[in-house]
Amino acid sequence: MQGFPPPAEKLIMQPESDFFSFPKMRWTVCHIRELMPTKQVSRGIGAPVPLASAPDEGIDAVRFLPLGSDTAMTWRESLFANYTDGLLVLHEGRVVYEHYSGCLSEAGKHAAMSMTKSLTGLLAEILVVEGRLDEGAKVGSIIPELEDSAFGSATVRQVMDMTTGLQYSENYADPNADIWVYSKAASPLPKPEGYVGPNGYFEYLQTVKQDGTHGEAFGYRTINSDALGWIISRVIGKDVAHLLSERIWSRMGAEQDGYMTVDAKGTPFAGGGLSAGLRDLGRVGQLMLSDGVINGEALFPRKVVDNIRAGGDREAFAKAGYSTLAGGSYRSMWWLFHNDHGAFAARGVHGQTIYVDPTADMVIVRFASFPTAANSRIDPTSLPAYQALAEYLMAK
Amino acid sequence: MQGFPPPAEKLIMQPESDFFSFPKMRWTVCHIRELMPTKQVSRGIGAPVPLASAPDEGIDAVRFLPLGSDTAMTWRESLFANYTDGLLVLHEGRVVYEHYSGCLSEAGKHAAMSMTKSLTGLLAEILVVEGRLDEGAKVGSIIPELEDSAFGSATVRQVMDMTTGLQYSENYADPNADIWVYSKAASPLPKPEGYVGPNGYFEYLQTVKQDGTHGEAFGYRTINSDALGWIISRVIGKDVAHLLSERIWSRMGAEQDGYMTVDAKGTPFAGGGLSAGLRDLGRVGQLMLSDGVINGEALFPRKVVDNIRAGGDREAFAKAGYSTLAGGSYRSMWWLFHNDHGAFAARGVHGQTIYVDPTADMVIVRFASFPTAANSRIDPTSLPAYQALAEYLMAK
Repeated sequence: MQGFPPPAEKLIMQPESDFFSFPKMRWTVCHIRELMPTKQVSRGIGAPVPLASAPDEGIDAVRFLPLGSDTAMTWRESLFANYTDGLLVLHEGRVVYEHYSGCLSEAGKHAAMSMTKSLTGLLAEILVVEGRLDEGAKVGSIIPELEDSAFGSATVRQVMDMTTGLQYSENYADPNADIWVYSKAASPLPKPEGYVGPNGYFEYLQTVKQDGTHGEAFGYRTINSDALGWIISRVIGKDVAHLLSERIWSRMGAEQDGYMTVDAKGTPFAGGGLSAGLRDLGRVGQLMLSDGVINGEALFPRKVVDNIRAGGDREAFAKAGYSTLAGGSYRSMWWLFHNDHGAFAARGVHGQTIYVDPTADMVIVRFASFPTAANSRIDPTSLPAYQALAEYLMAK
Repeated sequence: MQGFPPPAEKLIMQPESDFFSFPKMRWTVCHIRELMPTKQVSRGIGAPVPLASAPDEGIDAVRFLPLGSDTAMTWRESLFANYTDGLLVLHEGRVVYEHYSGCLSEAGKHAAMSMTKSLTGLLAEILVVEGRLDEGAKVGSIIPELEDSAFGSATVRQVMDMTTGLQYSENYADPNADIWVYSKAASPLPKPEGYVGPNGYFEYLQTVKQDGTHGEAFGYRTINSDALGWIISRVIGKDVAHLLSERIWSRMGAEQDGYMTVDAKGTPFAGGGLSAGLRDLGRVGQLMLSDGVINGEALFPRKVVDNIRAGGDREAFAKAGYSTLAGGSYRSMWWLFHNDHGAFAARGVHGQTIYVDPTADMVIVRFASFPTAANSRIDPTSLPAYQALAEYLMAK
């Protein structure tokens, strides 16, 4: 997208199948708002609180063994292997490493993708701890419009932990798969003439049918996050973007506004719509590491992070068979590794992560535009790198 | 747009004919980005520079005689008569009056509409004074793609002052009027199947035919601003949103990012796409009042404002017959009143203005959502109010 105009073969435009294809995606991830409507996640209008800085030039040379490999790789090499756009490491609350590449700069924003879910989940967990949202309540009792859908008989907690039993096919090869119906409903573009399907997240959620028993197995489905977004909006009377600003963004010393994509009716995409600056997601990670405290202020009770770190149903999680996350769990839309360091993470396709290691007092944020979506392709050169970095920092 | 979801009859969505209708427009003007793609005008990531404050509680009672009326009105009454969403007055560099209503709050943003043109014009004037843009050059020599259009034989200065002779009908009743072709080209939405017209501002501009002689008459046509946006982008290699951030927004102590709407190819709408916070447009006004200096720093040479204040061709302007602006002129996309105070302004439909009165050392910014577009309906209760306020402040 350089030149006025850019050459025709370099133009990046709607539709999504084009702008999210690789390599165009490498530009798109920093420019989502230029392609579709979005809602601001306001930082407010005061001065940002700068992050302390203590660069460690030894980090690039940290070595680790990628999963399933017997050839060591350096930290620096892993950045390129993973199509990294931005990488921030906080240790003991200070920035020890910061790297920008691809489309990202320090004043830029990048798509957080499914890390958005973890912020939606965090908001819900805050409301649960504050007693404003009953995690045991049936969703149908909070949102009567969902009573006849699969969500109606699920509890709020089952939605938060994605142990709902939902009929939802993500078979991309099937043109009638639910994912396509969902995509059409979610698109902010005006519906084509003759379109009779649901319009927007809320209408789509009402059509979801049950499949299986709620509470038995973990099933990673974005529509749970959309349902949770609706639940907290209905309970609090504010949408997710508004609440995220009010509870987190405007109070953590953020240096940039964030933003969220919206459907055609203005509903923020609670399951994947956030874009934000690298250091601001570092502040989010620090907030989680510090049990809700940042810049000397508690934004929410310590119990919120305690609840998340306690983890979800590991047996239910195991049924999903994630090879790189064996022994883990999912709680309030955060991923728990249940490793020796008690690490947990927000994760999004194409390599996005906020990785929190409480034992090493370390937060890593990575933005990336890896060609394939599944993190199982990126974890082998990421998770062991994070562990090696934690050990390096602890040994200092 | 309240509730999750809002009731069907209260929903505000695409298409533009719906979201820009009154009264829906009263919400839309603060939420443009939620309806279409936009590009950030970054303030950077540093601390804003707060505006000094010295509230004057006498302003509400200032009285004036509306044009063509023999019944006095108070300043306060004029706010409501004009569907004011935000009103800021700076006197001697300090905020003496600040008012929010309708959809606007101090951390919100509002559509600047055609005030955008004045920022595009300011950027061009800066480049002219810096010797990077030749105001006497033919547009075709800068943008060969425009050689065969009406713009090809016009000078940069004629485009800046809108004295080009263009064939461009804004007869809304004629479905084949140029304004509709332009609107379809400019829409960021994917073009309907079978659409064969121009896509985007740049393609549209190439189709504009000449009508009349360049330089003879002022003709207020937004496409001049789009052409100027293209000219400065081609000359500098950055689009208008980028350049506006680099030269103005990131250097004036802004407290919020601004943003601009874009066409389907990502080109910012240089003729009307800006949305911004009230106080940030106050900073722009102060910058003009102070000949380019703000917070002790000169952002551009004094000659830039001198050139604008010298005004355009008053004879050419008179031919356009603006009843409320008799004796005025238009220069570098700013409106000059040529009154005793040397006042000049950025103006946009539905009541937007940055009004700069150098004699009274006063800047007024007004955001509004007046039901009808033409400022000739709003000027009668605005321009005399501004003059009365100037006299009140000078007499203090």
